[in-house]
Amino acid sequence: MARALEIAAQGRGKVEPNPMVGCVIARGAEIIGEGYHQRYGGPHAEIEALRVAGPRAKGAVMYVTLEPCCHHGKTPPCTEAVIAAGIARVVAAMQDPFAQVAGKGLEALRRAGIEVSCGLMEAEARELNAPYLKLLAVGRPWVIAKWAMTLDGKIATVAHESRWISGPASRARSHRLRGRVDAILVGSGTVLADDPLLTVRPPGDRTPLRVVLDGRARIPLESQLVRTARETPVLIAVNESADGGARKALEAAGCEILVCPAADGAARLDFLLAELGKRRMTNVLIEGGSRLLGAVFDAGMIDEVHVFAAPKLLGGKAAPTPIAGSGIPRITAAKEVRVLAVERLDSDIYIQGRLTRP
Amino acid sequence: MARALEIAAQGRGKVEPNPMVGCVIARGAEIIGEGYHQRYGGPHAEIEALRVAGPRAKGAVMYVTLEPCCHHGKTPPCTEAVIAAGIARVVAAMQDPFAQVAGKGLEALRRAGIEVSCGLMEAEARELNAPYLKLLAVGRPWVIAKWAMTLDGKIATVAHESRWISGPASRARSHRLRGRVDAILVGSGTVLADDPLLTVRPPGDRTPLRVVLDGRARIPLESQLVRTARETPVLIAVNESADGGARKALEAAGCEILVCPAADGAARLDFLLAELGKRRMTNVLIEGGSRLLGAVFDAGMIDEVHVFAAPKLLGGKAAPTPIAGSGIPRITAAKEVRVLAVERLDSDIYIQGRLTRP
Repeated sequence: MARALEIAAQGRGKVEPNPMVGCVIARGAEIIGEGYHQRYGGPHAEIEALRVAGPRAKGAVMYVTLEPCCHHGKTPPCTEAVIAAGIARVVAAMQDPFAQVAGKGLEALRRAGIEVSCGLMEAEARELNAPYLKLLAVGRPWVIAKWAMTLDGKIATVAHESRWISGPASRARSHRLRGRVDAILVGSGTVLADDPLLTVRPPGDRTPLRVVLDGRARIPLESQLVRTARETPVLIAVNESADGGARKALEAAGCEILVCPAADGAARLDFLLAELGKRRMTNVLIEGGSRLLGAVFDAGMIDEVHVFAAPKLLGGKAAPTPIAGSGIPRITAAKEVRVLAVERLDSDIYIQGRLTRP
Repeated sequence: MARALEIAAQGRGKVEPNPMVGCVIARGAEIIGEGYHQRYGGPHAEIEALRVAGPRAKGAVMYVTLEPCCHHGKTPPCTEAVIAAGIARVVAAMQDPFAQVAGKGLEALRRAGIEVSCGLMEAEARELNAPYLKLLAVGRPWVIAKWAMTLDGKIATVAHESRWISGPASRARSHRLRGRVDAILVGSGTVLADDPLLTVRPPGDRTPLRVVLDGRARIPLESQLVRTARETPVLIAVNESADGGARKALEAAGCEILVCPAADGAARLDFLLAELGKRRMTNVLIEGGSRLLGAVFDAGMIDEVHVFAAPKLLGGKAAPTPIAGSGIPRITAAKEVRVLAVERLDSDIYIQGRLTRP
């Protein structure tokens, strides 16, 4: 199962909104086939593994990180293929909570006389597909916050310069992260200060939607984002009170306008995330600035962080930090991050982790 | 020489205000003796190495990280021992800029017919003894800044809680750092907010002087620092305008009062560091808070940083960052840190580095 989880992860960024799945077929200690779900719409992990195993699959054991599907989606049901191949036993890490499966896949296998068990390395399997599971459970994408800061915790100077805090290797890694998410979200302050392009360079597995939370529809038509809106989509989330003329001009320039009818900032953010969830977006990357990340943090919406710490000091009481907002007053209530990786990227230090749920 | 530098470093925290020195004696490829300066007042590295080598030192080559001394200090001149042992060749990494040596040690060896060269791995030797060299060159101690911060760059919450941001392993490491410095410096704000003890627990190689920059002499007589001033020395650096009654009361409680007659914050800091330099203090550790570190940073006085990054998020625009002050407006002018170590300490990330001089 460890191997199945390992290969499943290779689908990250390619399979969403499908789950990442890995499958290993074994006879005794020998692996006779393995496969993973490689791209959205492509064959499922089980089909790949059965193809490799061929006729030897008869009587073998299948280890799969997620319950095999039993419905006709983009591809035929895996359960039918598993049964047809004569697999004797299926060990799944977890049930698929997807409504059309949800235990019915395992049930179909059992009915066909296959020995079925479920729950081996379930925690690891849930960790692997946490974004998929969140989207299914609450209809909101997994929220990844990313920032580059100095060793003294600044994301820009007192004069609001932020280019570049991190080095080329960090920026390349950051583009790889962009290239696997469904949307990149920034605040209007970041557009006004930095005029970012928010594209993926070089292109990744998917082209994220560029989203600006811009309540008053004040980002300029001359911004790089708006000028490239016809090549790479841009969504501007505005308040109901935003100037109608500005909205029309942004639309005329090729941007999509989403009106967020909500009372306060947290509700507006939630409305926006719900909309992205409706579009079946699994991963959203928030690239700041300080105010937007503060609002998202205060609303308890951050799931994962990617921090690039550059070996520099900037100082300054007025220099912005990664997360503004009202913050948490008690140390004991600080949000804990389970660190998954610490790496040197040239001279920068890259830290990746997930927030532990209370 | 690499080996000599390696063993020399073992004297860190024990030999100051002497330099760290390592010495290796070799015959061909064979090391026949090695030693390092182990404690202030103890035998020098050369003497230790000669003792190990014994009579085999005759005709051998001595590698030493610093020019051998030629004066009577706490111990007799090393040059005499080197000559007496019949060493054929001395390779030194660098001259000792200490006024009573400064080339005269190498000269004495040359006059005795020993082949002498100087400059092998000189950069590394200078790096090793940077604090010693700074004290000799400018009469100011080496300034080490230390802080614990969250992954979002906060050293306390918006309610100014800071205990504990980092974990037990980080705090233990921090005490080890305290135990090798000559003084620990904090601002009065830190004493008022945290009431720290600033002792070394468990005790280290030396007992640092506890120094508070407290312009208005406002730290309370009930603070832990003042209450323990008779066991572990406390120096309070005040302005000329500080209340006389408060000064007297602090003195009566066992604190030493240093009046800093200077026009502004930077000049006062410089006066204080000059005073610590006069006392031959080699390393001073600044433990914050935000305002003091900001003032020291703005004055360009930080030489080395030790950062403990805890996997927590606190958020908050008003939460203090490690270095306040006015800061550097241009990214290109950011102070660069040469990272010497990145380590995991339990779940914390520990980063140590030195500022690269312009």
